[in-house]
Amino acid sequence: MTAVDVPVGLLGYGTVGSAVHRLLNDSADDVERATGHRLRVVRALVRDPAKEREFRPPDGLLTDDFAAIRDDPQIALVAEVMGGIEPTGGYVLELLRSGKPVVSANKQLVAQRGAELFAAASEAGVQLRFEASVCAAIPVIKVLRESLSFSRVHRILGIVNGTTNFILTQMETGASYDEALAEAQRLGYAEADPTDDVSGADAAAKMAILATVAFGTRVSREDVWHVGIQEISPIHVRAARELDMVVRLVGAATIVDGRYDVRVQPAFVDRHHPLAAVEGAFNAVMLQGDAIREIMLEGPGAGGLETASAVVSDMIGVIGTRGTGFLENDACWRTLERLPHGDVVSPFYVHVEVADRPGVLADVARRLAKHEVSVARLVQHELQPGAAALHVVLHECRSGNLADALVEIAQLPETVRRPTALPVISDRGVPGLGWA
Amino acid sequence: MTAVDVPVGLLGYGTVGSAVHRLLNDSADDVERATGHRLRVVRALVRDPAKEREFRPPDGLLTDDFAAIRDDPQIALVAEVMGGIEPTGGYVLELLRSGKPVVSANKQLVAQRGAELFAAASEAGVQLRFEASVCAAIPVIKVLRESLSFSRVHRILGIVNGTTNFILTQMETGASYDEALAEAQRLGYAEADPTDDVSGADAAAKMAILATVAFGTRVSREDVWHVGIQEISPIHVRAARELDMVVRLVGAATIVDGRYDVRVQPAFVDRHHPLAAVEGAFNAVMLQGDAIREIMLEGPGAGGLETASAVVSDMIGVIGTRGTGFLENDACWRTLERLPHGDVVSPFYVHVEVADRPGVLADVARRLAKHEVSVARLVQHELQPGAAALHVVLHECRSGNLADALVEIAQLPETVRRPTALPVISDRGVPGLGWA
Repeated sequence: MTAVDVPVGLLGYGTVGSAVHRLLNDSADDVERATGHRLRVVRALVRDPAKEREFRPPDGLLTDDFAAIRDDPQIALVAEVMGGIEPTGGYVLELLRSGKPVVSANKQLVAQRGAELFAAASEAGVQLRFEASVCAAIPVIKVLRESLSFSRVHRILGIVNGTTNFILTQMETGASYDEALAEAQRLGYAEADPTDDVSGADAAAKMAILATVAFGTRVSREDVWHVGIQEISPIHVRAARELDMVVRLVGAATIVDGRYDVRVQPAFVDRHHPLAAVEGAFNAVMLQGDAIREIMLEGPGAGGLETASAVVSDMIGVIGTRGTGFLENDACWRTLERLPHGDVVSPFYVHVEVADRPGVLADVARRLAKHEVSVARLVQHELQPGAAALHVVLHECRSGNLADALVEIAQLPETVRRPTALPVISDRGVPGLGWA
Repeated sequence: MTAVDVPVGLLGYGTVGSAVHRLLNDSADDVERATGHRLRVVRALVRDPAKEREFRPPDGLLTDDFAAIRDDPQIALVAEVMGGIEPTGGYVLELLRSGKPVVSANKQLVAQRGAELFAAASEAGVQLRFEASVCAAIPVIKVLRESLSFSRVHRILGIVNGTTNFILTQMETGASYDEALAEAQRLGYAEADPTDDVSGADAAAKMAILATVAFGTRVSREDVWHVGIQEISPIHVRAARELDMVVRLVGAATIVDGRYDVRVQPAFVDRHHPLAAVEGAFNAVMLQGDAIREIMLEGPGAGGLETASAVVSDMIGVIGTRGTGFLENDACWRTLERLPHGDVVSPFYVHVEVADRPGVLADVARRLAKHEVSVARLVQHELQPGAAALHVVLHECRSGNLADALVEIAQLPETVRRPTALPVISDRGVPGLGWA
């Protein structure tokens, strides 16, 4: 059988784009064996075709004219690996509208302009794939859209930011937050300005994409409540260890009674929970659904070659399903409401620093009880003479009730520092023991 | 757009078959949204259509006449969920030859008759999918064949038998092997005759399938060397804990210098290795390749609904790729040789029980050194007055050299029991620190 020739265009030819080109070249035989098609990069859009590049493309491949890709009828498929929102978003829209399937590695584009892009793809009857936009080579989007399209995933727990996971696991070895961040920067895991990662914003964009795909309802970045790891101190990491837990920045997307909640925040994860085993710059996503119980995917969440690998996977996916009607849909087929913030139910860990006086424990416990928050476990540590830290593990409660109780505890005369609360993620797959 | 109607046949209507029927009914809208097709079970082959069944099928669905499925031109796709080798294998062959794609949940059939079945599928230009044959709903076959078809996976580490993993994690709580097995039987995780699981034979069949798909070369059950967990005692489990490791039954498939090695055996797994976190009856498969580094998939490895979920995923996969040439290939495109057994290189843990006499340590160490086996760590425990257990962690060595050394150590006058050796799986993704 003669292989079908598939000319391919790239938007961008940087680290990822050139890696996509090399992967497609190196694996042309493998791809042909699996698909009966040979994918061949024929054109790549760049700002300056004359620029010196680490990987020199063949003559004539690079162009600075978008129309040379959009209007080339032989180009059957385009991979967007240029990043940014504009002009990228406009280009992707034009390509979809002109009937070309697009594979994108662009998290911000998908998270911010997904609605518009998917509508265009759906209308034109072409696919928009975006595996590389979340967790690089970990095939979580493919598994959600293909293997589990019928499986009603109702909860996703994810460690979807490698930088913060690296920092948190470094802190387990005794490093301070600042030392761990500096080490992450030295190794290239963190940017000079790490705000997007450590604030949880990056993870929030990824969780928005995952929730949109899994729940079939539009979740934008703004719908994801997020708290970063900047306030995590060695005190928290030590407290977690004493409770046989670890601190992780966890994204949680949940369907509760037909409403959705998506949030990113540091959590105490039980050592026996699979997410606790995710160390260093790795990512992991746990999917829970009716028929599958729970499936976890883990791997490197970043890297040029890993991202390129996901882009090539998507290209093969488009070619392998072309013309069948498969996935030529907008993932969003329903409109769910957001769960009010305080209605999320979870067990929590609470850290309170107090003056070590008779009655203080009773004062704290009374405020919790007043808001129907009940204590599972309490450890008191002397911080210095006259001051104590209370480590409190709570049974499941409404986060709104806990917030109210903490406001009152913060106002107690004995309280010397604003209390902090982190959700606890404990047993695997047991309803009522994780986040709602 | 009107959905395309896809009449579907089932071979078998037991636990899995009836669950496939219900899943397809319940999720018809979801499947239509994702694929533009409505899958509808129209006929199911059973031995006795009149038998009372827990889930009563609609009138006319069941038949005991295979030809009613094979010769029905409207049936576009068949799922084989009846199990067994005969007559099942003959049925599947006939279906493929008559141009019907088949989805199979049958591990033994795929492992034993894969060559014949894939050749028939390839010749007829139809797909044979088999996700449910390995690790139930964990989409490892899909990820290997689709996401990573171009990625040169060179190593697979898998916990692919839930029964043995349950037993081994039970033993971590202090249970003996017999107690843990009895508990597994009580919970329905182990059969009354547990041989197939505890001997490693079940895991070997699954590893044969995974290696065949990943390496593109035919690996049959007989090519997989396997040792079970029957000899694992609380002594091993305790020794592992003291070394900050756990005991797991690990399948390892590796490409070494163009030859393959596939084996299943108990191993000492470092507590920080992702496989160490796999507890209870769960399964996990780690795939290592050039572009992806390593991806791990984890989930329940058995269960009627989980298996049915994988069957439905495969059916959607067939429908979503029909007519594109995708995966209408035999996964085996090359013939690799098997690595000689003793050529596998790994670090090992060795357990020796000796009479506690001056010079015994030197005697053991000399035998190891003679065969170029070097010691990384040694702990000596008194077993009873006059008898000691040596726990030895070795640097990487050829397993053949170690076997030779152990023969000599077994013959030492001080040795009171045959020494045992288990591979050590330590750092993640670091070449040279895992098996081969």
